Amino acid sequence: MNFQIILRFIGILIFFLGVAMAPPLGVSLLFKDNCTQSLLLAMAITCALGILLFVFTKKEKGKQLNHRDGVAIVTLGWLMAGLVGALPYLFSGTIPDFTNACFESISGFTTTGASIITNIESLPEGILLWRSLTQWLGGMGIIVLSIAILPFLGIGGMQLYKAEIPSPVVDKLKPRISETARILWKIYLLITLLQVVLLLGGGMDLLDSFCHAFSTMPTGGFSTKNAGIAQYNSAYFDFVIVIFMLLAGINFSLHYRLLKGDLKIFGKDSECRVFLIIVGTFILLVTLDIYGDVYKSLFQAFRFAAFQVSSIITTTGFVSADYEKWPHFSQLILLVCMFLGAMAGSTGGGIKIVRIMLMVKQGYQQIFRIIHPHAVTTVKLGGQPVSTDVLGSIWGFFFLYMGLFVAASLVMAGLGLDFITSISSVAASIGNIGPGFGLVGPIRNYLEIPAAGKWVLISCMLLGRLEIYTVIVLLAPAYWRR
Amino acid sequence: MNFQIILRFIGILIFFLGVAMAPPLGVSLLFKDNCTQSLLLAMAITCALGILLFVFTKKEKGKQLNHRDGVAIVTLGWLMAGLVGALPYLFSGTIPDFTNACFESISGFTTTGASIITNIESLPEGILLWRSLTQWLGGMGIIVLSIAILPFLGIGGMQLYKAEIPSPVVDKLKPRISETARILWKIYLLITLLQVVLLLGGGMDLLDSFCHAFSTMPTGGFSTKNAGIAQYNSAYFDFVIVIFMLLAGINFSLHYRLLKGDLKIFGKDSECRVFLIIVGTFILLVTLDIYGDVYKSLFQAFRFAAFQVSSIITTTGFVSADYEKWPHFSQLILLVCMFLGAMAGSTGGGIKIVRIMLMVKQGYQQIFRIIHPHAVTTVKLGGQPVSTDVLGSIWGFFFLYMGLFVAASLVMAGLGLDFITSISSVAASIGNIGPGFGLVGPIRNYLEIPAAGKWVLISCMLLGRLEIYTVIVLLAPAYWRR
Repeated sequence: MNFQIILRFIGILIFFLGVAMAPPLGVSLLFKDNCTQSLLLAMAITCALGILLFVFTKKEKGKQLNHRDGVAIVTLGWLMAGLVGALPYLFSGTIPDFTNACFESISGFTTTGASIITNIESLPEGILLWRSLTQWLGGMGIIVLSIAILPFLGIGGMQLYKAEIPSPVVDKLKPRISETARILWKIYLLITLLQVVLLLGGGMDLLDSFCHAFSTMPTGGFSTKNAGIAQYNSAYFDFVIVIFMLLAGINFSLHYRLLKGDLKIFGKDSECRVFLIIVGTFILLVTLDIYGDVYKSLFQAFRFAAFQVSSIITTTGFVSADYEKWPHFSQLILLVCMFLGAMAGSTGGGIKIVRIMLMVKQGYQQIFRIIHPHAVTTVKLGGQPVSTDVLGSIWGFFFLYMGLFVAASLVMAGLGLDFITSISSVAASIGNIGPGFGLVGPIRNYLEIPAAGKWVLISCMLLGRLEIYTVIVLLAPAYWRR
Repeated sequence: MNFQIILRFIGILIFFLGVAMAPPLGVSLLFKDNCTQSLLLAMAITCALGILLFVFTKKEKGKQLNHRDGVAIVTLGWLMAGLVGALPYLFSGTIPDFTNACFESISGFTTTGASIITNIESLPEGILLWRSLTQWLGGMGIIVLSIAILPFLGIGGMQLYKAEIPSPVVDKLKPRISETARILWKIYLLITLLQVVLLLGGGMDLLDSFCHAFSTMPTGGFSTKNAGIAQYNSAYFDFVIVIFMLLAGINFSLHYRLLKGDLKIFGKDSECRVFLIIVGTFILLVTLDIYGDVYKSLFQAFRFAAFQVSSIITTTGFVSADYEKWPHFSQLILLVCMFLGAMAGSTGGGIKIVRIMLMVKQGYQQIFRIIHPHAVTTVKLGGQPVSTDVLGSIWGFFFLYMGLFVAASLVMAGLGLDFITSISSVAASIGNIGPGFGLVGPIRNYLEIPAAGKWVLISCMLLGRLEIYTVIVLLAPAYWRR
């Protein structure tokens, strides 16, 4: 454990978070929204904290980061980002309660998008932008984490994705991550700007366009409107957002390859193919289920089905319709989507399609083992054999995911919440989705959850976002032993 | 595939099922319950069908049973038992509908105990006994299946239990199974008789004592009373049944070793220890949760908590209280119990404790892998290393179990059932429990489920009871290839 290095990294991270408060500050000045002073104070404190951490830690030349340091930086980094990110809410008095401010901030940085704010439209413009920006920054972290860091830490089977993006420096962890990060962030910025342009073109105002794009690309889900995307009641906005949610749910390495000229990559990649087939099938099933009783027009049924399925399976959590009024079959499909999640290497949360695929394949392989007990079989993905190490990591991840879901649901029920609120708030937090069912349904928010329950859900958001292992490794005695 | 041998075995099985209709027939004669003729007809047809199958199949000398034959005999055997077991209901007119009769019969033979009968007490005595007996016979099948057959077929990780019971003939499958079966059945009969004596001693009448013992040992759950065990409102009966449910939830190999003089075996066996700790913890949590609001006396709270936790975790499904009136926390614990199940090698269903233990261990092992990427680690059970083959089988089983749960729940919701009924009816059927929540809650039954839904649940009962793989292997193209 190199505490000095870890704190130094976190110092840098916090400093840049402070710098990232500049755009909201600018917007605040422009709109004269009465939160300029609060944002300035938050920014000053955040930058100062970052600088202090950087200055008071020593640079140890030649010392390489090891696995343990990586895990600590990622987990503490996300937690610290969530805490300093709460300062603008607290200082401006928009969210005076500490727990609520942390909930909103960590929900943002984990790209969950679960909110405790009821009258969103009353928020100052600077705070609205900061709220959306926390997600966008969290999303930047996630694509680097899932494509460049987790594969090297060997977490949750992500070692599958080693060397996805070619890099000039391959032998050292740090330069490699920097190089990969730069490529991915360019793509991320590019797609975000494209969405802003399309939303502006449809008549959304500039601030809302940026805020919604900052919510879509990281699969976050915060909206600037009280009723979410439903408030616009525009098929154009719905379909633009559907397309960008799906893009955000696709592995960013594929976007890189697409931009490099491989135009058929979405069809060639086996995980992407399965992801799009699942999305298509679920949209079809939900369309048929809600057509007639809920929506008289087939187009409307398709529009709302496409939006909600894409929103939940990519773990964005935007709301365009009160899906709790839909038949139970459609609701159950949305609940299943909460667990599935999108592709690995995307900004989406959940279990993720590649893990589901490998588990299905291994489940199927067992059938052959029973019929041919002495045959040697291997599980393959895209023609390549998958090692038992990777499979073991995936099983471990899946079991912990389900175990965490059950344990946290029990705690929520123990706090007095009803059955459907307990299980769906936990599923929506671990999966970094946002809205659930019951008390935390699409037209409500997390305000009424008791404070203890909010901290349970905050823990679930962090655990889910960091693929569980990154967090719980820190709790293992073996981690702290020399 | 040796069709001749498979049909011959099933012929023998059916013939003995016909013979097993003799006790209900005797009771029917004794009570003059007006179903004597129907039972006689059912018995004659069943025996005749068995004899016909036996006579018209050739005995092929020297041909050994292989894995494929074993799987086919088990699956078709259970299905056929369920179908001929419906004859007494159909002929006597107690359940005139074909689907309902099959549901009740297969629910019995799979030791599920889910019922479609509302006025149970109006049933003729002979039919009551047959109903309980189907479970007891199913239980006989299950202990042999789980201790003697599945380990050899290598299904769901049960190869762990190879050679649990010593046998004089170890090299051939058939004689070994016969020997093991004889030992286990003696124990099964012994414990059943002990329970009958204790129930009689508490003042239960002879027929009810036998019926309830025939329901407890196989962890079935059919009662002869409309309100189930709650109707007796007797702490004595409750605790006698709790003890025997727990005994039924323990691996029968341990009972064998106990009878051989190893008095500390329940504490020595790691799975048994964990099982009893889980049961104890859940009873404690539920007691504390229902004490005060629901039950004013601590003893009453403990009594009902002990009963319902034991009943659900052992997958018996007896009802002594309307647990849907309990707080959501206790209800969620019961739902978790539905998935956990009891020990492997018991008559209980569900995922089973040993599998949960091995998955927890592997989940924990992954933490070490992240901290020490190059360390070689193995998962151990009771000090013995567990092979990756066994672990793979268990993961495959777990994933298929959850996949089946999700898929079947979606179908039930698609048939128009509400959320909680859909998921709990499927969980209670795959886990072979019986009562669930909602429409299939503790004070209701499965009558109102639409016919298509009943067949979905019948499939779930069979799949769950036969550890999923035994059934779906038959659907794999590779099974039918030469």
